[in-house]
Amino acid sequence: MSLDRLGEFGLIARLQSHIPTQSSRVVQGIGDDCAVFSQPGGNYQVVTADALIESVHFDLKTHTPEQLGWKTVAVNASDVAAMGALPRFAVITLGVPKNTPVRFLDRLYKGLNRACREFEIDLVGGDTVSTPKHWMISLTVFGETHKKRLFTRKGAQPGDALLVTGTLGDSALGLKILQSPRKKWTGRAADRKHLVQRHLEPTARVREAAKLARSKWRVTSMIDLSDGLSQDCNHILKASGVGAEVWECALPFSQAFENVCAGNRLRAGELAFQGGEDYELLFTLKSEDVKKLLESFVKYGTPVTQIGVISARKNGVTWVRSNGRRQVLRNPVGFNHFKENG
Amino acid sequence: MSLDRLGEFGLIARLQSHIPTQSSRVVQGIGDDCAVFSQPGGNYQVVTADALIESVHFDLKTHTPEQLGWKTVAVNASDVAAMGALPRFAVITLGVPKNTPVRFLDRLYKGLNRACREFEIDLVGGDTVSTPKHWMISLTVFGETHKKRLFTRKGAQPGDALLVTGTLGDSALGLKILQSPRKKWTGRAADRKHLVQRHLEPTARVREAAKLARSKWRVTSMIDLSDGLSQDCNHILKASGVGAEVWECALPFSQAFENVCAGNRLRAGELAFQGGEDYELLFTLKSEDVKKLLESFVKYGTPVTQIGVISARKNGVTWVRSNGRRQVLRNPVGFNHFKENG
Repeated sequence: MSLDRLGEFGLIARLQSHIPTQSSRVVQGIGDDCAVFSQPGGNYQVVTADALIESVHFDLKTHTPEQLGWKTVAVNASDVAAMGALPRFAVITLGVPKNTPVRFLDRLYKGLNRACREFEIDLVGGDTVSTPKHWMISLTVFGETHKKRLFTRKGAQPGDALLVTGTLGDSALGLKILQSPRKKWTGRAADRKHLVQRHLEPTARVREAAKLARSKWRVTSMIDLSDGLSQDCNHILKASGVGAEVWECALPFSQAFENVCAGNRLRAGELAFQGGEDYELLFTLKSEDVKKLLESFVKYGTPVTQIGVISARKNGVTWVRSNGRRQVLRNPVGFNHFKENG
Repeated sequence: MSLDRLGEFGLIARLQSHIPTQSSRVVQGIGDDCAVFSQPGGNYQVVTADALIESVHFDLKTHTPEQLGWKTVAVNASDVAAMGALPRFAVITLGVPKNTPVRFLDRLYKGLNRACREFEIDLVGGDTVSTPKHWMISLTVFGETHKKRLFTRKGAQPGDALLVTGTLGDSALGLKILQSPRKKWTGRAADRKHLVQRHLEPTARVREAAKLARSKWRVTSMIDLSDGLSQDCNHILKASGVGAEVWECALPFSQAFENVCAGNRLRAGELAFQGGEDYELLFTLKSEDVKKLLESFVKYGTPVTQIGVISARKNGVTWVRSNGRRQVLRNPVGFNHFKENG
């Protein structure tokens, strides 16, 4: 059997089975956004690693080196935030084709540094090696929790509200625009530019996660949206042993996203539901806490929206369309690294 | 200017200049075997990352997947040991071509796990992504020092003894044997097999480093031998602002290495001096402590040998040949990732 048949999640499950966790200090190994260790100071340290491969995860025709640097840091910071932790340090591994102009690397580091400043991360070291052909960037980021408060995918309970920060679908639509340069798009160029920007320079909800971790609100599970709402929601559901309703009519869209979808006959709901790389936080919360949390975030300036509710039936995501139709999705579709139509 | 003109160390210096270290918890950023942070418990945490790229660092025609897994862990554990720290946790990033048989990955993990058990490391997580063509493995390993005892490249002083664990040159000669399958080698096949094995499955001196860190012996600097004795010695000299004499006649060789060199007219001293990937510890020590340390390591079962002495003149390595000739090497030659004859 080859990897493209096994698929990414099949592979992860298989590799998990290979790895015995030995030390009592490992609170959580493979299987969430980060691995977690206890540390002497009484809080947890979390660690995540993400690799970006040229022609798989990025294309140097569309990303500037600065954007590539930024995105590398942001996607890892987002994983740390999803645990309720603050990112602290990062170590980078760069694989660089030999004929790369040094100027290119300088620009890449400019983007890395800008993101490290934004998310208050110290880039402390790493390894640089040559590659036969393609660029490779692997970043490992360490974070620390507030006391022992840790958000994982496991913990959502029936009746909990399902919430999301920011808006959905911008990145997926931005990617679509990048990939269809010859298509005649209707509407304002500024809208399309905004969406492309959201794809190329995603933000990470580091401050919002820290605010939640320091709050009294009963957050019961959390993940960051990288594979797409439908698929990432399912990760929470599987880990927690519950189901969920997701309401199409409640999904938060940016004005640019709405404009481009409306002007070009795109189905906004589905794009937002299945599109990847939003890097927003998806989390569940005791329903009694929803009102106060939403009010607080209005003041804070980051939109947070309830988009559904957790149910007891373990039947995956129930997608409630704006027209009232209900669709049960047992194995939601999203981005899968090893399947063509994964 | 492109990378192959700048060279690996030129690149590292350039990237260092890009990275501002912000946090007071960063004891040491880029520029040693590991980055170092203070942690709440009163000791230091060290972190290292190493990437292995197919066709640059390994060849799947010569390495079995198990050996590749072992080596990935060993080379990182060696970097942690070189700081006097014990490795604790590891996070892996795997880049895998899509058509890879799953069986291959299973075998890779077998090697990873064997090495993790050997060096007492918990492999706790990571990322697996597909690559267009070549394998890529990046491992980040965290270690912890004994109290605040940290060995760095800086600290060697004139008069200090220069010592090395184990034997030198085995790996370089093993690689030479692998790369010349058609050459008619004289002597026992078992000797050649041993040397090839030393190249494919290097050890890391984790226990020896821990013994030194817990001892009273005044170790003044340390590095692990990855680029080759001549070049790695120079890293200590530059960081410490001193020079050194290295005595060819004192270099420790394995019996297999001596046999193959003698039988095939190879210059053992030069091969051991310049060859890379020994993964032995090179360290400096107050001369008064040499006798007791050597006696202790004889009992311990790991050979340690004095191979030179630190001098005040900042003129790099002086290579003292067995015939008495002295050669001053200002810019020693070793393995450089971005130069053909680096």
